[in-house]
Amino acid sequence: MFTLLITIVSLTGYAQDDDAAKIRAIANEILLHGTAYDNLHTLTKQVGGRLSGSPQTYKAEAWAQSALQQAGADKVQLQQCMVPHWVRGGKDQARITTGSKKNQTLDVLALGNSVGSGPKGVQAPVVLVNSFDELEQHKNDLKGKIVFYNYKFNDAYVNTFEAYRDAVVYRGAGPSQAAKYGAVAVVVRSMSNSTDNNPHTGSTRYNDSFPKIPAVAIGLKDADELAAMLKKEPVTVFMETNGKMLPDTIAHNVIGELTGSEFPDQIITVGGHLDSWDPAEGAHDDGSGCVQSIEVLRALKAIGYKPRHTIRVVLFANEENGTRGGNKYAEEAHSKNEKHILAIESDEGGFTPRAFAVTMPKQQLDKIRSWVPLLAPYGISQINEGGGGSDIGPLNKELATPLAGLQPDSQRYFDLHHARNDVFEAVNKRELELGAVSMAALIYLVDKYGL
Amino acid sequence: MFTLLITIVSLTGYAQDDDAAKIRAIANEILLHGTAYDNLHTLTKQVGGRLSGSPQTYKAEAWAQSALQQAGADKVQLQQCMVPHWVRGGKDQARITTGSKKNQTLDVLALGNSVGSGPKGVQAPVVLVNSFDELEQHKNDLKGKIVFYNYKFNDAYVNTFEAYRDAVVYRGAGPSQAAKYGAVAVVVRSMSNSTDNNPHTGSTRYNDSFPKIPAVAIGLKDADELAAMLKKEPVTVFMETNGKMLPDTIAHNVIGELTGSEFPDQIITVGGHLDSWDPAEGAHDDGSGCVQSIEVLRALKAIGYKPRHTIRVVLFANEENGTRGGNKYAEEAHSKNEKHILAIESDEGGFTPRAFAVTMPKQQLDKIRSWVPLLAPYGISQINEGGGGSDIGPLNKELATPLAGLQPDSQRYFDLHHARNDVFEAVNKRELELGAVSMAALIYLVDKYGL
Repeated sequence: MFTLLITIVSLTGYAQDDDAAKIRAIANEILLHGTAYDNLHTLTKQVGGRLSGSPQTYKAEAWAQSALQQAGADKVQLQQCMVPHWVRGGKDQARITTGSKKNQTLDVLALGNSVGSGPKGVQAPVVLVNSFDELEQHKNDLKGKIVFYNYKFNDAYVNTFEAYRDAVVYRGAGPSQAAKYGAVAVVVRSMSNSTDNNPHTGSTRYNDSFPKIPAVAIGLKDADELAAMLKKEPVTVFMETNGKMLPDTIAHNVIGELTGSEFPDQIITVGGHLDSWDPAEGAHDDGSGCVQSIEVLRALKAIGYKPRHTIRVVLFANEENGTRGGNKYAEEAHSKNEKHILAIESDEGGFTPRAFAVTMPKQQLDKIRSWVPLLAPYGISQINEGGGGSDIGPLNKELATPLAGLQPDSQRYFDLHHARNDVFEAVNKRELELGAVSMAALIYLVDKYGL
Repeated sequence: MFTLLITIVSLTGYAQDDDAAKIRAIANEILLHGTAYDNLHTLTKQVGGRLSGSPQTYKAEAWAQSALQQAGADKVQLQQCMVPHWVRGGKDQARITTGSKKNQTLDVLALGNSVGSGPKGVQAPVVLVNSFDELEQHKNDLKGKIVFYNYKFNDAYVNTFEAYRDAVVYRGAGPSQAAKYGAVAVVVRSMSNSTDNNPHTGSTRYNDSFPKIPAVAIGLKDADELAAMLKKEPVTVFMETNGKMLPDTIAHNVIGELTGSEFPDQIITVGGHLDSWDPAEGAHDDGSGCVQSIEVLRALKAIGYKPRHTIRVVLFANEENGTRGGNKYAEEAHSKNEKHILAIESDEGGFTPRAFAVTMPKQQLDKIRSWVPLLAPYGISQINEGGGGSDIGPLNKELATPLAGLQPDSQRYFDLHHARNDVFEAVNKRELELGAVSMAALIYLVDKYGL
């Protein structure tokens, strides 16, 4: 019995050493011979911003196919889906007029999916509200007005995604809520804690019961200045936007796989989304997740690892304004009765990794937690409950697939999320690579031990 | 017995809740009303680079006194010490000539403490060595030559400080080692893993047994290009540097304290260094550590915390090329027979916090480890053994004071360490603030429970 125990302990110890060595090999491959950073350069600089339906959508899909092939995928395919096709339609502009100032330029970005004012623009007095409660209080004063939502990011949240979830309702539901009371346009304080003045766009969702009115985001400095002006005197804003929703169009999930040697029909999915907002290059959101996912496949192949299960890299279409790619992937998985062991997504930026946030039963959670000592040397110090990613969420709904979302350090994400500065230069090579290491290590462990 | 146990557990639970609430209050103060970022702006933009003995040294000291007073220090004082006074003396320049190229500009920065060539410059054929071993192999070919140390940062180290420690010997000892064999100058590949081409300066230390020869750093792209050239054909480099070591001069540690209510003679020190290299603004190295330390004092005072022990913020003089400030502080502590409970330093940049690295007996280490659950919400996920900081190291030598060094995420540090891009704009406000939160929380716990 004692001998048996010793043997088991030694074997366990040996397995841990062996796993540590294998993960070290994966990390060395990525840190010393990585292609993620160069791939990101190509995607951001040669393709650029790639909103669903834009010409760059298809350029990005072609790039992704080629990148997956070069990474060594056994099979690369396109999975077609229909996506919303919103176009900005021109340059957004706005000007402020008060008793003392005339036509002072206001730096604005129309919200995604929003209707344009057209070239004639819309001009009206501005009513500031700090919350929906305040909107209700002013509901009889809003007819013909422009509502300015000045709800602030709560900087007390250490994880900035909590501040985002708290504030983003004003971007999503704000325009229709204002239209309900007769407002003619909306200005939204950006969902950000940046120190600069860039406006941050992102989806708005109209409620069909009310008129669709133009809506723009402004930067934090301008929001503060506008609020200060409104304390002193009435303010009128003129804005011109040209957004338009065209008929749905075709896009594709781009899928590359390493076919499993023992269980080819059991799938581990890892991915990010290929689309991005148009004002920048979609470097952190979510070029990073795409090139990290490709890098996972490349590194496992490069070190000669033969996965037991099929590892599928999925670069999803249309996360930003529809999640149609993620829905399509889950529907097909369901209709084909596929067996999905785990789905991992990286869509919180290419920053230094800190955690995985998982949605799965306790037993599986505990299993992943037992691997933290193997992941910690590369940055993953904890496994948080409740997480995943927009694109893999539907897999959990359709098939109860366990989910894991990579959680990099969140401090810098909302400095550039959906703004003009989400560019290649804002990504650090090694932070990006360590995220890929973390995902590859988790996949290696799940592939070896199951979940 | 059972009741007693329940009581103890409840009390412990209560204490933990109370501590968590207090640390939350400290964090809110720093994240919502912090001054560290504005202070850093003033230090970097109004004072700028502040090499020991430069006019900015004294401007920085004056700023620091005022900032500590505004933060609410009970007492602010200067502690005088003598510091080395090296001056760059002009613009460093260099040019490459080969059979096919004539006078191609090479972007160089003279190493700190290095002697200048003077305006006539030095010109000689270049010999590349990848290591000291290779230097030995070439020792008979080095007379009258310029030695090019091309030792690379090892990107396999996840903590980049390990790569730095591994490589920095070529900057520190390389010039004298080359001079030993008759070399007339040295070019060093920068101690960095950046993706740009900035040269990184830093101290070199001459061995008095050999001639002092000029020495410059070059960026990584230039290092790779120079190495590629040398594979094809002989290369001659001309360099002009004007560095000069003037007589030692006066500088000061700037010290502000919150005097302890119960144990005024027992001291917790927290600090960073006020000096920096000259090519940039010393924003991460170590403006960040200075403003974080001031912020610790400000936040504790602002929330009305009355420390039991004296909390001393020390902004040390001359870390970069002498550590004279740190030595002076420890000597005086020793001669006055002061009791130091703990010394904390932040000198690894204003990045998102991850750990403390400590030098202290096991029992104290375990005590600090038991507090990780209280620190983790703000980023500190582990306590590593063996660390501290250059400026507080002497306290440990003189008085066996326990040390704790803040370890922020290290991935970006050597992109800008001692280079032109160590500027304010490279610091993220919230990452900087979370470092201050981590230090303030640790100090609160040590002040309350002892160590």
